[in-house]
Amino acid sequence: MKNSLPLALALWLCAPAAGQVPFERILKASSEPGAWLTYSGAYDGSRFSKLDEIRPGNVARLKARWVYQIRQDGEFECSPIVADGVMYVTEPQAAVSALDLATGRPLWRWARPVSDDVLTLGFPQTNRGVAVLDESVFVGTLDAKLVALDARSGIQRWETVVAENKLGYSLTLAPLAVKNKIIVGVSGAEAGIRGFLDAYDAKTGKRAWRFWTIPAPGEPGSDTWTGDAWKTGGGSTWVTGAYDPELNLVYWGTGNPGPDWNGDVRPGDNLFTCSLVALDADTGRLRWHFQFTPHDTHDWDATHVPVLLDGTIRGKQRKLVAVANRNAFYYVLDRATGEFLSGTPYAKQTWAKGLDDRGRPIVIPGTDPTPEGNLVWPSLNGSTVWFSPAYSPLTRLFYVATRERGSIYYKGEAIYRPGTQFMGGGERALPDDESWGAIRALEVETGRLKWEFPLHSPPWAGVLATAGGLVFSGSNEGNFFALDAATGKPLWDFQAGAQVRSNPISFLIDGRQHVAAGAGKTLFVFGLDGSGEYSGE
Amino acid sequence: MKNSLPLALALWLCAPAAGQVPFERILKASSEPGAWLTYSGAYDGSRFSKLDEIRPGNVARLKARWVYQIRQDGEFECSPIVADGVMYVTEPQAAVSALDLATGRPLWRWARPVSDDVLTLGFPQTNRGVAVLDESVFVGTLDAKLVALDARSGIQRWETVVAENKLGYSLTLAPLAVKNKIIVGVSGAEAGIRGFLDAYDAKTGKRAWRFWTIPAPGEPGSDTWTGDAWKTGGGSTWVTGAYDPELNLVYWGTGNPGPDWNGDVRPGDNLFTCSLVALDADTGRLRWHFQFTPHDTHDWDATHVPVLLDGTIRGKQRKLVAVANRNAFYYVLDRATGEFLSGTPYAKQTWAKGLDDRGRPIVIPGTDPTPEGNLVWPSLNGSTVWFSPAYSPLTRLFYVATRERGSIYYKGEAIYRPGTQFMGGGERALPDDESWGAIRALEVETGRLKWEFPLHSPPWAGVLATAGGLVFSGSNEGNFFALDAATGKPLWDFQAGAQVRSNPISFLIDGRQHVAAGAGKTLFVFGLDGSGEYSGE
Repeated sequence: MKNSLPLALALWLCAPAAGQVPFERILKASSEPGAWLTYSGAYDGSRFSKLDEIRPGNVARLKARWVYQIRQDGEFECSPIVADGVMYVTEPQAAVSALDLATGRPLWRWARPVSDDVLTLGFPQTNRGVAVLDESVFVGTLDAKLVALDARSGIQRWETVVAENKLGYSLTLAPLAVKNKIIVGVSGAEAGIRGFLDAYDAKTGKRAWRFWTIPAPGEPGSDTWTGDAWKTGGGSTWVTGAYDPELNLVYWGTGNPGPDWNGDVRPGDNLFTCSLVALDADTGRLRWHFQFTPHDTHDWDATHVPVLLDGTIRGKQRKLVAVANRNAFYYVLDRATGEFLSGTPYAKQTWAKGLDDRGRPIVIPGTDPTPEGNLVWPSLNGSTVWFSPAYSPLTRLFYVATRERGSIYYKGEAIYRPGTQFMGGGERALPDDESWGAIRALEVETGRLKWEFPLHSPPWAGVLATAGGLVFSGSNEGNFFALDAATGKPLWDFQAGAQVRSNPISFLIDGRQHVAAGAGKTLFVFGLDGSGEYSGE
Repeated sequence: MKNSLPLALALWLCAPAAGQVPFERILKASSEPGAWLTYSGAYDGSRFSKLDEIRPGNVARLKARWVYQIRQDGEFECSPIVADGVMYVTEPQAAVSALDLATGRPLWRWARPVSDDVLTLGFPQTNRGVAVLDESVFVGTLDAKLVALDARSGIQRWETVVAENKLGYSLTLAPLAVKNKIIVGVSGAEAGIRGFLDAYDAKTGKRAWRFWTIPAPGEPGSDTWTGDAWKTGGGSTWVTGAYDPELNLVYWGTGNPGPDWNGDVRPGDNLFTCSLVALDADTGRLRWHFQFTPHDTHDWDATHVPVLLDGTIRGKQRKLVAVANRNAFYYVLDRATGEFLSGTPYAKQTWAKGLDDRGRPIVIPGTDPTPEGNLVWPSLNGSTVWFSPAYSPLTRLFYVATRERGSIYYKGEAIYRPGTQFMGGGERALPDDESWGAIRALEVETGRLKWEFPLHSPPWAGVLATAGGLVFSGSNEGNFFALDAATGKPLWDFQAGAQVRSNPISFLIDGRQHVAAGAGKTLFVFGLDGSGEYSGE
């Protein structure tokens, strides 16, 4: 067909009607497995799909149906959102594309240039996805703005300045839509920011509440700081959290204190860094907190996706939250109260003898960074990091992509200058041939290792579990793979040609289950049918 | 498996033994369709595969087996070489990777930084592939060097400076290995270079011969130049040519004269620009030439892959060379003598009434660029350009990816300053909604249109024909597709997520036919089996 329409118009005419994604749909997301409505698939953070068409017996037939390549510099770390026949993906600087779910063709694209002087101190330029709510799509930007786009057209509805990028604040995470609010956290602890978690009115972009992860003098937790150290106390909130609608609590992990490696300038436990905080979703008020790594000096952010589930601990049914932490321990807490229930190492670590009864680490003396360098496991990037774990209620296993690497940690001078790195030292990771990785399956209540699937090198990709009895993830060596969820047996793989750096998702196209994940600059969509006959050029 | 070997060593241990690719194998490449030993698949330039496993009846089952993503800036325009279980691909600045053919995993990678001040005037940074000969792999670089690498290890064997990049010379094409020589042409006419074609001894890198596409005063053709214009006469040679072993002639297309759009400063026909030249492969001496566009003022390089075939013209069996030209005409010449046999438009053109008996265009007055601008079809990028046509001896059809677009051509001042643009004007292409494209199938002797498959926009990808009765190509809209070679009927497509900008190839993996082509930054390998069971992480 000779195209006599301008391209933009033609694309608009082809766009399927994007439906509404009200809060009630996201609440029940796990009962609508054909879509993928929020970052972790559902509010519980479990990254579990109830779809079961793809199973151990047929997964070897999985084929690429279509792919999408980003245009901007950097790599695809986005976890897409799928709703009503449209997939929403982001790019590292600031771009959102709406793709036709059946074909991968762009329906609209919103992008804007990023200033050459945008600050991203201590992390690569990246973006991990959008949130959808009602008729809007929400995306954070490297220069610390939150933008609302019309879901049908990509036209910008509003933009809010969340924080000053000149001070090192950035937004890289996928926002979380809860009720009528959009919750976003910030990156920037390596620049000595004072961290917070914000909620914005979805309609207007007006800020509804802010929770400072670093208390000011006189506020609860301020006794864990000395002098003015709280002003540059870090505590980023750069990974999307979870939500319990019944308790009306938002669960969010917080990052390391600033400066990273020199704790001398910030005596105390440095609350609420390296913690899980539970906040009232309407007010942002702190209900409880649990600090995994008091007075951290190894950059072990607790910015993980917390997984909410119900389970039996010592004979008692409880509402739980499970976290595989960067510090090499796997924790189970009571999510109503924050009470520590259990904690056990799931990866090699050389810094703690164990945890005490309240979950506080019994630190081995002499494991802090030194001017000469001090080898400690795990490394700066931890035993796991931002990428998502998964939990299957069918196997009752918690799946975590695990990194096995040590680092030599150095302590150095830490002088705060606004908009520059404020790290107080350095780190040198052990080389590749002394490092490895694994997908580990932990019994969810105890953290006991059920099986592991070894990887050549410490991974950088999340995990998806499905009701079909599969676990999907990817390796630095470019393989997407599927494992038997019960045994870890490898069943399928696909060489994607670049490091896998994203969290897989699952959804339906034309009633058939598909799985999507990104590697390098490319997003792959796999299904049992693969591509097909000519679909019309 | 916990990897206790350094990665480089592990890769080396895994490397299949790369065999020898002596000249005799390349000579008989078309009878070894499991490999793809030279740029166009064989010396005849036909980009035709004798493989016939993939056919109209099963092509709908074609699936991605593996993909590979380039690391460097720019897009994948390389036509890979496949030999002895290894695929060799290049990247836009200067990188060669040897990939395991079965899995896509890198066996070795050679890369080097490109200086920020490298000149690529008038074209994007790109590389279109390697040549292999004996145990070596040959690649050209943007800074106009030719590099020989060991095929087993990627270790550099020698490097030769072909020309001065400071004057605008670059190498972007895939070299052509003929006998014991490596033939390379240059880009750079937009910088006012004096073009040439070179041959280098494959063992030593010593130059064996040079053919200047612009004759010096006193040399044959110099009467078509005035004054010193020849010194900046252009005539690039930036697309890989063909070779007839029986006649021992190398066929190579030449580019536009310099400056591009202001012909006033270079009166005359400007030989040997916009021509096909036939050179003795041993000496580089000119046997014959045919100029398609004398005194070109529209940047219509004749840098196409010429296709060599035998056919019957007016009842007489002849050795032919067929060229679909950027100037919108399709030509058939006698390849022993250069005699013009036929020429006919295959795309919209508004610059010539036709061709005379000797093939010279009958130019319509007033179609030269003017200071005010002059709309002429085809556009600067022509009716086709660097990407390859294909010819099937089974259908006797010549397949060409055709661009339908006009441009407004402007004439401006042309002052030569070394290492700067020397173009003498400008060009503004008509917008997308007044442009389109097609895959066209022409009867090879007459150029008569047999069928066409329309495309939304003027394409930028080449064509592959196969003995299975298929034609493969790709669109700007990101679709790879397969057409019935006899009818043009679309049979399969795959959305690759970015513009397709490369020439497809075909070869065997484990005895099964596969097809590969690049889109965006990603190379895709397709087969009827697609990916499979777990292949070992």
